[in-house]
Amino acid sequence: MDTFIRIDMTNLNIAVEKAPDAYELLGGRALTSRLVLDETAPECNPLGRRNRLVIAPGLLGGTGVPSSGRLSIGAKSPLTGGIKESNGGGTAAGKLARLGIKAIIVQGRPNNRAPYVVFVSRHRHELVACPELRLVGVYESAKRLQERFGSKVGIILIGPAGERFMTAAGVTNLDVDGVPSRYCARGGLGAVMGSQGLKAIVVDDSECGLRQPQRKPEFVAAVKELAQLIRTTPQTAEIYPKYGTSAMVRAANALGCLPTRNFASGRFDAADEISGERLHDLIVSRGGLTTHACMPGCLIRCSNVVLDREGGHLVSPLEYETIGLVGSNCQISSLDVIAEINRLCNDYGVDTLETGGAIGIAMQAGLLAFGDGEAAIRLVKEIGQASPIGKVIGQGAVLTARVLGVTEVPAVKGQMMPAYEPRGIKGMGVTYATSPMGADHTAGGTIRANVDHHDREGQIEASRNAQLSMGIYDALGLCMFVGSAVGRRVDLLASLVNSLYGIDWSVDGLTEYSRAILNAERAFNRRAGLTSAHDRLPEHFCEVQNPATQTVFDITDEELDWVVGN
Amino acid sequence: MDTFIRIDMTNLNIAVEKAPDAYELLGGRALTSRLVLDETAPECNPLGRRNRLVIAPGLLGGTGVPSSGRLSIGAKSPLTGGIKESNGGGTAAGKLARLGIKAIIVQGRPNNRAPYVVFVSRHRHELVACPELRLVGVYESAKRLQERFGSKVGIILIGPAGERFMTAAGVTNLDVDGVPSRYCARGGLGAVMGSQGLKAIVVDDSECGLRQPQRKPEFVAAVKELAQLIRTTPQTAEIYPKYGTSAMVRAANALGCLPTRNFASGRFDAADEISGERLHDLIVSRGGLTTHACMPGCLIRCSNVVLDREGGHLVSPLEYETIGLVGSNCQISSLDVIAEINRLCNDYGVDTLETGGAIGIAMQAGLLAFGDGEAAIRLVKEIGQASPIGKVIGQGAVLTARVLGVTEVPAVKGQMMPAYEPRGIKGMGVTYATSPMGADHTAGGTIRANVDHHDREGQIEASRNAQLSMGIYDALGLCMFVGSAVGRRVDLLASLVNSLYGIDWSVDGLTEYSRAILNAERAFNRRAGLTSAHDRLPEHFCEVQNPATQTVFDITDEELDWVVGN
Repeated sequence: MDTFIRIDMTNLNIAVEKAPDAYELLGGRALTSRLVLDETAPECNPLGRRNRLVIAPGLLGGTGVPSSGRLSIGAKSPLTGGIKESNGGGTAAGKLARLGIKAIIVQGRPNNRAPYVVFVSRHRHELVACPELRLVGVYESAKRLQERFGSKVGIILIGPAGERFMTAAGVTNLDVDGVPSRYCARGGLGAVMGSQGLKAIVVDDSECGLRQPQRKPEFVAAVKELAQLIRTTPQTAEIYPKYGTSAMVRAANALGCLPTRNFASGRFDAADEISGERLHDLIVSRGGLTTHACMPGCLIRCSNVVLDREGGHLVSPLEYETIGLVGSNCQISSLDVIAEINRLCNDYGVDTLETGGAIGIAMQAGLLAFGDGEAAIRLVKEIGQASPIGKVIGQGAVLTARVLGVTEVPAVKGQMMPAYEPRGIKGMGVTYATSPMGADHTAGGTIRANVDHHDREGQIEASRNAQLSMGIYDALGLCMFVGSAVGRRVDLLASLVNSLYGIDWSVDGLTEYSRAILNAERAFNRRAGLTSAHDRLPEHFCEVQNPATQTVFDITDEELDWVVGN
Repeated sequence: MDTFIRIDMTNLNIAVEKAPDAYELLGGRALTSRLVLDETAPECNPLGRRNRLVIAPGLLGGTGVPSSGRLSIGAKSPLTGGIKESNGGGTAAGKLARLGIKAIIVQGRPNNRAPYVVFVSRHRHELVACPELRLVGVYESAKRLQERFGSKVGIILIGPAGERFMTAAGVTNLDVDGVPSRYCARGGLGAVMGSQGLKAIVVDDSECGLRQPQRKPEFVAAVKELAQLIRTTPQTAEIYPKYGTSAMVRAANALGCLPTRNFASGRFDAADEISGERLHDLIVSRGGLTTHACMPGCLIRCSNVVLDREGGHLVSPLEYETIGLVGSNCQISSLDVIAEINRLCNDYGVDTLETGGAIGIAMQAGLLAFGDGEAAIRLVKEIGQASPIGKVIGQGAVLTARVLGVTEVPAVKGQMMPAYEPRGIKGMGVTYATSPMGADHTAGGTIRANVDHHDREGQIEASRNAQLSMGIYDALGLCMFVGSAVGRRVDLLASLVNSLYGIDWSVDGLTEYSRAILNAERAFNRRAGLTSAHDRLPEHFCEVQNPATQTVFDITDEELDWVVGN
């Protein structure tokens, strides 16, 4: 895994470079963030000619390590104005890694409007104009690309939202069934790819085997031990496979942090109707899948496949975050409505979190009623129609709020909060405020931290530790849910990296490695014009109580600054 | 002039305070910016409960000094995210000053939606709910308020755009004819006032005479000398009275800095059709006024009154900036169309610059054709209808560009550039980049600086000097056009202030006074999260030539930072 593929969209040229030595031990988010810092002018227009999109598998990508196939995508974000890394599962990262590709760097933009598709394989790199895919949804686009390039390829793909520069647009890639369902959803990276005139990257890893470790016995032993931990930890062995992430609905509601009514509260009366248990029964009753792997070799299989009433494929996966933002946040208690909105968002290529947040804002503005699922579906369809209001919603929650005159916006650095209400789980609020990524639960979730989530004690340490921990997972390309099984056995992660690369990192070394990622990201953000003034929650969370918990967000500015500095 | 009127919209209470001594010699922009810095949390939500709106006459307000009746309004801007001062002519400032009111400070927001009207006079301060004025245009609102409070009152007023939190919304006040035509237009201050539930402030200065100076003979002599200069300087004695600001159309076009086609060029083929000469003839042919004072005692009278084809009042005034933004920038060559759009913008209460900029963006996006005046009028009417696209346009150019997927946006710090293309007049570009106000010609115009406007030499000094000079005019409440007459006789300004207040400031002292304003504004902006990364022009101005001048904006980042530091 030692090449960079550089795609120059201005000159419609693909170059293969040997990755400089300095990048040898960087992968996933560590690599995308470093390359963005090194190559992208921090003050550039995120949708202009100077931004670059970086796509990278994690350090463990392309190996037999379970759940190591996360794909990282980075750029300057048109949503936050700062650096962004968004990662997702699927099949593309493993294929890139097996092709020896450390990163794909996309730069420039073509002078015509035809979207292009890049094909990479062991023997061939090709850039082809595909005007017939212009503004075609991801489901149909993926199907046509599979017909053209074969059913076993990986495809990194944007929908019409990205082509239209909507800043809620994400980048998807295929799951193990060939469905374009695994989104690097956040930060508007789909709009960056769209602004570069790139519709898809097709990855064909035929004739490529698994990557082989430098120290095989140690590697095999570590993989085996990790697999054993995953198989014996209740969270990864039982709860995730059965309920997926939606097991969190009831827990969050009980804790008072299930976002409800545009984050006015943390408790939703109808939470049971959208719970993991209810979703499980619905899926089973229609013959869908409750236990489903998004990437090859996943032992957890937290994904699911939801069928509609007639037994047809509705959406895969339906996850907690979407249920929280599109469901409780909009007081929508129908899983079918939530699933339908999820399917539409996926097809257009927009983040369900920004979209759910924007719907909640529109409801608060009175454009439609809280709880009106059919109106919400119609509103989401406007994104696909690119009507004026659809173009507004497609820009995400913050812009929607400005247009509709709503001043209570649950967002940080321009990015909508995910499905943890930050007065009900204060550590998560600390992460929202201080992560270089904007409001993002994957940047350092504290839900499993040993703290009283309603109390202010211990939250800044919990967030800081979680952010450092997540940097490791994001660099390795490991799914964060493996973390439930790994727990304190971070030595196992070190062992995997060490035996694969023939190095000797300590656990502390891994932490420092993660700190370097955060430092690089913060350096970029500072140069891009973000300051400590942006490391704050919206003021209403600090002033008005969450009625479910009777708490406000009372972590001080000084404490938030401590997190950034430590 | 020693009282603060503090309007608490949360508790619906008006308090009269003696202004603290520290504010005694602050007026206009010096006072609004200082009060914003001292009283407003820089990180606050500009449309939330913590922002404050500060309204102040200049230091010379309420006296017989010609053209000294500018009204300053300041707050944290919902458009730029930084501090804002916007000033305009009209009658309100003089009345406030004669009432002894140094500043009105509006804070909080009511719990109901009824807009309120404040009445202030020598004997009475009153806050009354006026639900009947909700979402009523400024022309009709002013008429009803005049019917209620008398024809001689001053009225500070917002339109429906401000009530709807549109960030292109300004604050207007009456001219000498009682027409609500003098806008403090920029930075979305109308949305701040709207978010506070305040529709209008009615100012009745009955029984109040002119303010009297401490040293009368010196004051009278200085006033006399200033009047003489105004009457004998060609610019203020002949050109402004005859053509108003629109004399600039031909000059700017010749220089290659007349914004054309969303600032793609600085030369408009049909510039003659929208020139000051053409406007003069049109006004005269219909029996309008080419020479019109916006405030009592103005000797320049650059304003005008434009009648429609039937001889009815169309709009007053029609100025260069509007002609540049709505006209050439949109390739609209009909003065009647431009005037009609101006009238609509005034009635809704939105800045014509943001609106013209947004129309140009919409034209570039293909929503309507460049030059299609009738379509442009229909689009502006959507602001009044508050349709989805109208709500987008009402948020100004930058947001419109994001929604419509346009990446070339002529704006700085979120604010649309006025009618000077910055590659064709580089000093103005320096001011756009470095002013704490965002892109703003009134923050330090360099059109009369002794430099080659196409060359990079001398531009940073010209901008820095102009910014320091403007601070003085903005603090004194003097119209910037007096500057053409004053020229290097800044000692005359010192003499006016000194004799009025009984002090002894030097010319250098005045410059240092102005520097303190800029420093206060920059301090606020830094705390609000603006950095040197925001003191830049959009990258396309630095990369692509203005075809009219074959120049790019080539002032370096270091040079821009020098302006901020000096």
